[in-house]
Amino acid sequence: MAAPPQFHVYDTTLRDGAQQEGLRLTVADKLRIAGYLDELGVGFIEGGWPGANPTDTAFFAAAARGELVLKHAQLVAFGATRRVGGRAADDPLVAALRDSHAPYACLVAKSHSRHVELALRTTLAENLAMVTDTVQHLRSEGMRVFVDCEHFFDGYREDPAYALEVVRTAAEAGAEVVVLCDTNGGMLPSWMGDVVSAAGAVGVDLGVHCHNDTGCAIANTLAAVDAGVMHVQGTVNGYGERTGNADLVPVVANLELKYGWSVLPEGALAEATRISHAISAVTNVPGSARAPYVGTSSFAHKAGLHASAIRVDPNLYQHIDPALVGNDMRMLISDMAGRANIQIKGEELGFDLSDRELAARVTEQVKNREAEGYSYEAADASFELLLRSELGELDEYFSVLQWRVHTHSAAGERSDSEATVKLRARGEEQLFVGEGNGPVNALDAALRRALTPAFPVVDCYELTDYRVRVLEGSVRAGGGHGTNAVVRVLIDTTDGERTWTTVGVGSNVIEASWEALSDAYLYGLLHRAAPEPAPAEVTVVD
Amino acid sequence: MAAPPQFHVYDTTLRDGAQQEGLRLTVADKLRIAGYLDELGVGFIEGGWPGANPTDTAFFAAAARGELVLKHAQLVAFGATRRVGGRAADDPLVAALRDSHAPYACLVAKSHSRHVELALRTTLAENLAMVTDTVQHLRSEGMRVFVDCEHFFDGYREDPAYALEVVRTAAEAGAEVVVLCDTNGGMLPSWMGDVVSAAGAVGVDLGVHCHNDTGCAIANTLAAVDAGVMHVQGTVNGYGERTGNADLVPVVANLELKYGWSVLPEGALAEATRISHAISAVTNVPGSARAPYVGTSSFAHKAGLHASAIRVDPNLYQHIDPALVGNDMRMLISDMAGRANIQIKGEELGFDLSDRELAARVTEQVKNREAEGYSYEAADASFELLLRSELGELDEYFSVLQWRVHTHSAAGERSDSEATVKLRARGEEQLFVGEGNGPVNALDAALRRALTPAFPVVDCYELTDYRVRVLEGSVRAGGGHGTNAVVRVLIDTTDGERTWTTVGVGSNVIEASWEALSDAYLYGLLHRAAPEPAPAEVTVVD
Repeated sequence: MAAPPQFHVYDTTLRDGAQQEGLRLTVADKLRIAGYLDELGVGFIEGGWPGANPTDTAFFAAAARGELVLKHAQLVAFGATRRVGGRAADDPLVAALRDSHAPYACLVAKSHSRHVELALRTTLAENLAMVTDTVQHLRSEGMRVFVDCEHFFDGYREDPAYALEVVRTAAEAGAEVVVLCDTNGGMLPSWMGDVVSAAGAVGVDLGVHCHNDTGCAIANTLAAVDAGVMHVQGTVNGYGERTGNADLVPVVANLELKYGWSVLPEGALAEATRISHAISAVTNVPGSARAPYVGTSSFAHKAGLHASAIRVDPNLYQHIDPALVGNDMRMLISDMAGRANIQIKGEELGFDLSDRELAARVTEQVKNREAEGYSYEAADASFELLLRSELGELDEYFSVLQWRVHTHSAAGERSDSEATVKLRARGEEQLFVGEGNGPVNALDAALRRALTPAFPVVDCYELTDYRVRVLEGSVRAGGGHGTNAVVRVLIDTTDGERTWTTVGVGSNVIEASWEALSDAYLYGLLHRAAPEPAPAEVTVVD
Repeated sequence: MAAPPQFHVYDTTLRDGAQQEGLRLTVADKLRIAGYLDELGVGFIEGGWPGANPTDTAFFAAAARGELVLKHAQLVAFGATRRVGGRAADDPLVAALRDSHAPYACLVAKSHSRHVELALRTTLAENLAMVTDTVQHLRSEGMRVFVDCEHFFDGYREDPAYALEVVRTAAEAGAEVVVLCDTNGGMLPSWMGDVVSAAGAVGVDLGVHCHNDTGCAIANTLAAVDAGVMHVQGTVNGYGERTGNADLVPVVANLELKYGWSVLPEGALAEATRISHAISAVTNVPGSARAPYVGTSSFAHKAGLHASAIRVDPNLYQHIDPALVGNDMRMLISDMAGRANIQIKGEELGFDLSDRELAARVTEQVKNREAEGYSYEAADASFELLLRSELGELDEYFSVLQWRVHTHSAAGERSDSEATVKLRARGEEQLFVGEGNGPVNALDAALRRALTPAFPVVDCYELTDYRVRVLEGSVRAGGGHGTNAVVRVLIDTTDGERTWTTVGVGSNVIEASWEALSDAYLYGLLHRAAPEPAPAEVTVVD
């Protein structure tokens, strides 16, 4: 069964999600997340508020330069109605919307009369004029326009006529969708229907934007869909101010799997778990293990009393097949889960894992390593190294005998670091030194100098991202915490053409970084475009 | 307005909540949590399954010995209907319920015909006989009995007559409440009403038990209340298997604050935030900052544009007064913040920032520091240090002259670290050394040893969390990336009573960690409960 034809999914992770406490996204972060959102197949990606802060302006500029190529989604620039008493045509923030080159604008408009008077400090009539002027101006500039009615539900409770008047005004000015926002998040599902139906009488397509302050954002969104909205807003992983926005993945999964609607492109829902986790890796906000549909615990069953029944029919104990959202059933007593994924992943990388015993051994290895804190989801390069090691197909390009690094600072000055690496490559054992503005940078410098004589290609490798996460309570940590916990480091490396990600885990950030760093070089050497010329002797360059 | 007189709140944190992956509760933990649940004012506390595991048996024994004194709640022992083909009077697990000395038993019974056949492997008639026999036996032993109908909603969908027959059988045998369980958690709110109403026709008081697999556990619980259930089950902080159980605090807060029902004793709801956080401390599962009602972010406001309106009327921007649940409104300090935010924040911390020039200077300072990579919204302690420094109210307890740290690893072994810190405190300059399993740990050890002679209180400071973020393209980095970027570290420290967060920024993780670490000690010393005794001379302890 299909959703109504004009029904669409609207993501605001990059704008309202970024309001979450502690979440700060760079332009590069936003571009990566937008790519993942496009893979998920949302219809619209609200990229930010151009003109309101330098990051968002730069994001739209990067997108306009072709740094963001969307296969499916439309990009939306968020903004507000023009300033009180001005003209939309003269308003620099309205101009920034057009200059964003996004095809769509989403304008926030006040729809609660008390907010108009107390926060905007203008008249109810001027607020309506602001809506009309801004929507009409942007339409005349060739943009398509959505309008977010801020505080709509609270406004409707106090002054329903005015709240509805804002909806009508936006629709008459040319807004394609008017979005009813529960900005303060205080609604309950049983209260949604009447309000949405009243707004529906205006005769424009409606949307809904919910926050989770009552713990009901997902249910409120569904209640609005039941009452006829055609556009649902949310954020991946429920990011957002205060308690967050409606978590978009469970909203969409409920629509697809419970309502039977097709709201994403064919096959996209099965990528939801991977995409949710990948976005977590970019935001560096750990995902909840209990997140509906995509959490690591969400299809985990304590072994024991259910085991035989689960073997008869797993659906006795789970509400959906976890593969539908790209998640896995996990059982303590069984290594069944995961093996199929590992086989598929191995085939993607060009390895034959059809041998069940081999696949089981790799699965076991991956599970053990993940229990220690490794994460292969975001680290394909490290997964390939693990696979090659199990298959006996991992050439030893170099081996590190020891490393040490020293960081020093005096009386509040900037610190500096010096590293030494003792390494064997092509039969020769040598000691190399490097310095840098930090210990990992110094280790990188030493390793690069050590490898360059034998493998000149490493000189073009560049580390483009470096992410650190402190893990609590992993097997390896024995539940340590604070500065005594286990650390996971992910490093992205590029040779200018391809980019690969490696993972390292250790009892401290240096140890973990070193593992990810040396694996990054090893992977690069395995995949270097052309074979190296006959090896030069390794010579000491220091 | 009051709830219906027989309406009650039933907590299963200690039983179903303890099924959460990674959550392990000792007897002492369970006793402490039961005390907190009683303070929250729930009607019933399900303490565990006596006879099924040693911890739960010991918990009920401890409670019976008087180690748990409940002011308000009744204790409930969870168990199952008797074994297939036996007699309840001869069943050791049924006897364990009586021997628990709890006044109530809650029995789980199968109500889904396919589960009876495939998991229990018996006939539909025998399952009904098991319900009747077990309920009647426990009633004859003087216990009051509730019955949980497992997989009720899925069972009703497949075989409604049988599911209802189980409800009727339990009621006729003497169960006071029959609880409809969405064991697999696949329900949506709009599906609840019809099913609950059908069960209501049996004429017994009904309860509901929801899981969060669709993200709707709270809303499903409310939908069941709307359809007439008189008993709601849930767990504090939503603990539970897979995606967890219905989170009891938002359920109760919605009933009290949105429905206007009194379901807890007078004044208890205002303790909800404290109790939720206290239970988190016992389980050692960090609470979600975004948890509805009780999360640390749940009434935090970031957007600068709202600050002036918030001063006019805070309720324009929050759905309830946070004091009703014992939470606080917080203004977040970020580079979006304007002067009004900073003034409100300063007042929260007890500083007078009414001087516009001073407030502007602090705002400027915050913006500059945030442009360098600092983030004060999550680091109140560092914000206070900045404020005191601007106000000239920052005592110098110690000053660090230099530090160095050395990390070493040989041939793939675990690394170890050694740090030295040269420091002046109370007029004496000394050098201290510490070691650890990582560089930050070693620096912490050295600093702690250095401060202990002058300030013995630092010995009780514990670092409870440590978070690292690599920032791309900050002003300070000059757009560096990879291992050459700017690093931000956040450290949480506790003295056992309060917890504070400090931030450090540097060109590498060690430098940033050092700043956050030394500020954590400085803030702790500024706020230590009682003045230190007359300073001992600082002596070298190494």
